[in-house]
Amino acid sequence: MNNLENITTLSSELNIQTHEVLQLVIEAWQQLQIQQPLVHCITNQVAANYVANILLAAGASPAMIDNPFEAESFVKISKSLSVNLGTPNTEQVAAMKIATAVAQQHQIPWVLDPVGYSTVLPWRTEITDELLQFKPSIIRGNASEISTLAGQQIQSKGVDSTLDSAEVYLQANALLEHTECVAISGESDFILSKTYQCVFKINGGSYLQPKVTATGCALGALIAAYSGVTQSSIACIAAHLHFAIAGKLAFEKAQSVGSFNVAFLDEIYSLTEEKIHQYADFEIIK
Amino acid sequence: MNNLENITTLSSELNIQTHEVLQLVIEAWQQLQIQQPLVHCITNQVAANYVANILLAAGASPAMIDNPFEAESFVKISKSLSVNLGTPNTEQVAAMKIATAVAQQHQIPWVLDPVGYSTVLPWRTEITDELLQFKPSIIRGNASEISTLAGQQIQSKGVDSTLDSAEVYLQANALLEHTECVAISGESDFILSKTYQCVFKINGGSYLQPKVTATGCALGALIAAYSGVTQSSIACIAAHLHFAIAGKLAFEKAQSVGSFNVAFLDEIYSLTEEKIHQYADFEIIK
Amino acid sequence: MNNLENITTLSSELNIQTHEVLQLVIEAWQQLQIQQPLVHCITNQVAANYVANILLAAGASPAMIDNPFEAESFVKISKSLSVNLGTPNTEQVAAMKIATAVAQQHQIPWVLDPVGYSTVLPWRTEITDELLQFKPSIIRGNASEISTLAGQQIQSKGVDSTLDSAEVYLQANALLEHTECVAISGESDFILSKTYQCVFKINGGSYLQPKVTATGCALGALIAAYSGVTQSSIACIAAHLHFAIAGKLAFEKAQSVGSFNVAFLDEIYSLTEEKIHQYADFEIIK
Repeated sequence: MNNLENITTLSSELNIQTHEVLQLVIEAWQQLQIQQPLVHCITNQVAANYVANILLAAGASPAMIDNPFEAESFVKISKSLSVNLGTPNTEQVAAMKIATAVAQQHQIPWVLDPVGYSTVLPWRTEITDELLQFKPSIIRGNASEISTLAGQQIQSKGVDSTLDSAEVYLQANALLEHTECVAISGESDFILSKTYQCVFKINGGSYLQPKVTATGCALGALIAAYSGVTQSSIACIAAHLHFAIAGKLAFEKAQSVGSFNVAFLDEIYSLTEEKIHQYADFEIIK
Repeated sequence: MNNLENITTLSSELNIQTHEVLQLVIEAWQQLQIQQPLVHCITNQVAANYVANILLAAGASPAMIDNPFEAESFVKISKSLSVNLGTPNTEQVAAMKIATAVAQQHQIPWVLDPVGYSTVLPWRTEITDELLQFKPSIIRGNASEISTLAGQQIQSKGVDSTLDSAEVYLQANALLEHTECVAISGESDFILSKTYQCVFKINGGSYLQPKVTATGCALGALIAAYSGVTQSSIACIAAHLHFAIAGKLAFEKAQSVGSFNVAFLDEIYSLTEEKIHQYADFEIIK
Repeated sequence: MNNLENITTLSSELNIQTHEVLQLVIEAWQQLQIQQPLVHCITNQVAANYVANILLAAGASPAMIDNPFEAESFVKISKSLSVNLGTPNTEQVAAMKIATAVAQQHQIPWVLDPVGYSTVLPWRTEITDELLQFKPSIIRGNASEISTLAGQQIQSKGVDSTLDSAEVYLQANALLEHTECVAISGESDFILSKTYQCVFKINGGSYLQPKVTATGCALGALIAAYSGVTQSSIACIAAHLHFAIAGKLAFEKAQSVGSFNVAFLDEIYSLTEEKIHQYADFEIIK
């Protein structure tokens, strides 16, 4: 069964054209600079510093509040919430459950990044399944995670993907039952949109990005940042394009991982409307 | 009521001159290189790596011991203690309470960095208020945090400041009841000293510093490092000048956040007596 | 008593020559690139991001799973395990105990890095002593840690060494009761091997390495990565040479800590068979 069949959207949103998407992305990026939205991040210990630096560089205002005693009051004042299952512990999981429930209740957009979702990590898969009931605005992950979350049985290798994004994006339709958008990162990125009833394919980036830890986690948080200033589908596309353009331009400057990562942060910070126009490389798959 | 009125200091310490301060700062920096003081840091997960790298680059020997089972024995052998409320959890808070109590008892200088002190984060404000009873040598924070801690009602936005340091430094007088020194970071930094009964205003740095996460946290830890080799007021001034000079020189080398941060670490490491003489930019406000 | 006396090894393994070691190291490095082994890391909050980046750059696939609820299932699918006592907390310690017990049971090689092992940190020394019963394949640490673990009474200064590696490597013989290999990092590194009944001395690196936090932690994890593709002694030598060569070449490019660390990551990623041949600097001490 194709979940897309049951979805009603405004007819004006269907058949969106590439140039319209591009315009919405540019406006989203401008709003990120103007509004500097407060983004509540509950992320893993590997990614915390990197995520904060990426969000600051991109224009947002990140705050890593991951205790259960402050999760409710803090998510209420945030523009969006990013939840990442990388290295959960008991208190952090309690914070996730509170924050996501409150986010749903107060219609604060939130992103679920089910890091390591697989049969070898049953504790976090149960937690993730529980969080799904609070209807994330966006689910993002690599191909292995999204495929498993969509009900496929695959052999996982830790937190890195063993599948290609192009192989699994159709399976991901099943997840639109829980969310507005599904974003799958890989050599090309695929974004499934309920609003537009189509799939966006994003090209670009560099093969060095997966060699820097926590880039996927930072991308999830950047989607959350954008979803603080625009609707979910455009937030996904904008964040992926921001990463793809920065990755491409950084690789032109530096071809080894240490210096590439420095250049990548520089490029995340140095995005302009002109660069978006010049380098945005995506297509719409009906 | 002005808390300064009730304070007795040695008359020789009053009316300190700029050149005397500069000499004490240079001696402090030299002692930091010679003694490489062991600094006990209880900090947040976003900042931990960065704080350690800044302290190593500056000449100190940092150790992040944040469990309650070792806090007592470790603070006793440390030259100073840095406590940062960025991402507290239950065990870390227990460690903070033990370490600060023992620090006070053994007259080990300690710095309180009340990250996110605000009405939207009531759990940490209660903890912070409790830690105040152990009389931090120095309280440092951004304008929003210091203003709220000093009893003002302000609207906070996460962990970033919504106020200017110049607006709040007079309010901060109220905090001298609890501490020897209050340091407020911002476009210019303001340091209120009980010893010298005056305010020091530090200029310099770069507008890129707040775009790198955890620079404030690292500054707090660097104040702690200096307070292991000199008195509290000079430790505050020395750490702020160290940051301001490194920030200014780094910005001359690099104008985007990733490469700026690399240059900043380089400059923290490469400070010299000559650079302090040439670039230290501060004034004394009576 | 010399523990080496009681050890039986294959005669062919004794009297190994330098060129044979070099060949095994090159094969290990090649296998690391081909197999990209999944390395289960339980490490500290200061090191987590850096360790992951070093392992990715070196060719391995790291995953930081440090909760007790997933430790068993995850270590079973990993090629090796790295356990680092830098900033333990209750849940992480529980994860360590489970993971190391399961690793021993399933003959998965694991590395113990007893960070801060000293009389001033009694909690972690007890935990470390308990972990020793699960027979780490390799114990690695700085001279102070290894000396104390081997039963010497020394005065520690936090987590940095106060002793020279050359002074303590003979004391470390006592630890071969618990492990196959002991690796001591310092100005020169010393590796005691039970298999080869000799000591390998590794030269190279840069004096800037100890000025970057978590380099020792990352070295321990890299040893674990190599032990996923080769035997323990060669894994130790290969990881130390990888670090020594990268440190030496990075220092030729950059002489201050921030830029050195970027260059160091670049060089970890850019190792080649030719560079190993040209720059590997070690000797065998019988």
